[in-house]
Amino acid sequence: MKISIERATLLKAVSHAQSVVERRNTIPILANVLIEAEGAEVRFRATDLDIEVVDKVEAMVERAGATTVSATTLNEIVRKLPDGAQVTLTDDGTSGRLTIEAGRSNFSLATLPKEDFPVMATSEYSANFSAKASVLRRLFDKSKFAISTEETRYYLNGVYMHVSESEGGKVLRCVATDGHRLARIDADLPENASDMPGVIVPRKTVGELRKLLDDDDMQIAVSVSETKVRFATPEITLTSKVIDGTFPDYTRVIPQGNTRKMEVDAADFAKAVDRVATVSSERSRAVKLSLDEDRLVLSVNAPDSGAAEEELAVAYGDERLEIGFNAKYLLEIASQVDRENAVFLFNSSGDPTLMREGNDTSAVYVVMPMRV
Amino acid sequence: MKISIERATLLKAVSHAQSVVERRNTIPILANVLIEAEGAEVRFRATDLDIEVVDKVEAMVERAGATTVSATTLNEIVRKLPDGAQVTLTDDGTSGRLTIEAGRSNFSLATLPKEDFPVMATSEYSANFSAKASVLRRLFDKSKFAISTEETRYYLNGVYMHVSESEGGKVLRCVATDGHRLARIDADLPENASDMPGVIVPRKTVGELRKLLDDDDMQIAVSVSETKVRFATPEITLTSKVIDGTFPDYTRVIPQGNTRKMEVDAADFAKAVDRVATVSSERSRAVKLSLDEDRLVLSVNAPDSGAAEEELAVAYGDERLEIGFNAKYLLEIASQVDRENAVFLFNSSGDPTLMREGNDTSAVYVVMPMRV
Repeated sequence: MKISIERATLLKAVSHAQSVVERRNTIPILANVLIEAEGAEVRFRATDLDIEVVDKVEAMVERAGATTVSATTLNEIVRKLPDGAQVTLTDDGTSGRLTIEAGRSNFSLATLPKEDFPVMATSEYSANFSAKASVLRRLFDKSKFAISTEETRYYLNGVYMHVSESEGGKVLRCVATDGHRLARIDADLPENASDMPGVIVPRKTVGELRKLLDDDDMQIAVSVSETKVRFATPEITLTSKVIDGTFPDYTRVIPQGNTRKMEVDAADFAKAVDRVATVSSERSRAVKLSLDEDRLVLSVNAPDSGAAEEELAVAYGDERLEIGFNAKYLLEIASQVDRENAVFLFNSSGDPTLMREGNDTSAVYVVMPMRV
Repeated sequence: MKISIERATLLKAVSHAQSVVERRNTIPILANVLIEAEGAEVRFRATDLDIEVVDKVEAMVERAGATTVSATTLNEIVRKLPDGAQVTLTDDGTSGRLTIEAGRSNFSLATLPKEDFPVMATSEYSANFSAKASVLRRLFDKSKFAISTEETRYYLNGVYMHVSESEGGKVLRCVATDGHRLARIDADLPENASDMPGVIVPRKTVGELRKLLDDDDMQIAVSVSETKVRFATPEITLTSKVIDGTFPDYTRVIPQGNTRKMEVDAADFAKAVDRVATVSSERSRAVKLSLDEDRLVLSVNAPDSGAAEEELAVAYGDERLEIGFNAKYLLEIASQVDRENAVFLFNSSGDPTLMREGNDTSAVYVVMPMRV
């Protein structure tokens, strides 16, 4: 194999590969990126056995071939090469070394045979559709904060992407929850997506997917089966196993009858919560919300260290209410609001609270209260 | 005590205090900042028993007095208050609480009695002089990277500031070393400094001192005794114990007879060292320098992972030489060079190497070679 490729192009592909590779590997070849050159195209493939990413780039292929080298080391080398450099990768197939040349720099890296590289089996997908990058970005960005990190509840360690019914008809929906808070985000159902099986997209895949979604108008090809999900641009294909489990029936958690409505500027609210939480040094900082006619008092009482109180002007017309929340959870849901006021719908101090942005029901958040 | 003070002014003083306070304290009051209000002035004092910092700020003092509260919590609160806020601190002297008010925010923090706060004993200083902030900044910034972190060699855990003889006469000199590399930085001796005893300024003090030195033309009042050192601006006084030990005779380490001279662009050199070091995964990455007529080849050989080589154009007219160094040490000394080329003076492959900036002998660096 011998190829010549521009540094920036190479860096993009290799850094992609490097981020999928796991730091600590018991199987050496899983630390490597598979480089395959043919025609005028080079493919860079990396996997952790659950996720596989393939970057296709154009390059001058002098001699076709394939090999594997350490993704991390190759990424470090390419990153440190000067901007604009032309990089030549050569593998003679016998020495067990890949040579990397650029200007007066010359590297040789140990290779492992391409035959040993575990390429993910191709699958039949039961649904294939296309969605705009900006739509997918919103679905996952607004839900991922609620993904559980508890490994024992592995079926909550991802975003549940599925087709659901909403007031306006069928939607593509992403839900994540850790039992303390929940995010439910809807988008118009793309054409051909209605037969899609519901899948739990793992946290790491959500992170890798994000890198494909920077260009708002890019169309992303999405393929879904019972066991796998694939997201693809013309250059990059990200394939991932989905979490083998059943996502719980989240609809029961979303309160329907909450009628006590408070409307507040989300940024002001977040800043005030952040300030009053300062006096408590505990990990789960409880903030008390005391509501009265158009007036919200946030307070924290930490007997050892001190107390804090802050008043905010809000729109609230219901009867008096006192309710406590974990400050971190309030901050996280408030930071999802980007256009309108945050609207909170309470029931009693022991019931889950709902939050949405203005009257928009396509993104709703639920947060459980805390005793204060 | 009751004072009113602008948020930015308060934040600067409290964040200073907070950085001196140690995170983990067995003595509770050491986590606190002592706030003393009198006249039109408020002093904020913090200590870890080795360093004491006092910030004097102007404020509206409605009622004089003093108290102590958690430096970290107060800093966090003030940081989160809106820009431009006017902050009122009130302590009634009986409740054991300090009240902090700003706009609609209201905090109360537990206090500890001011009488329990350990104020550092005042000392007689044997030398008092004044130096420009830019001069002190250069002395410490260019030497501190070489401070040892080995606690067993506690006398190397700081910068040795002392008066010494140079070609041009007496100088104010800062030296730091960890036994593998050494930095020796000279400045013109300030008036009245010649009787100064040599002192080892601890690493943490060097870090705190840096915050006083941002304004180039600021005159810093320096006071030195056998046991303490003090740096002061009109607003801030930083007092520190010095390390109770003898700094080794560093002059014997600085090679005098090195004649093989190599001149190289420091930035190009650093980038090349960084690149070739990439292929080695070991912590102490050995880079080999092979010198020949106006030509330097940097190389690294890591049998397991690979090899790297890079050629640089240099000015070198002596006989062939091969010498190895720890890549990290080369990078650190090369990054001290900011104006001219880096000039390396070698002897043999087993001897310490000297580096300076062009012909400037007021900053010299020594680095020990490594077997490669």
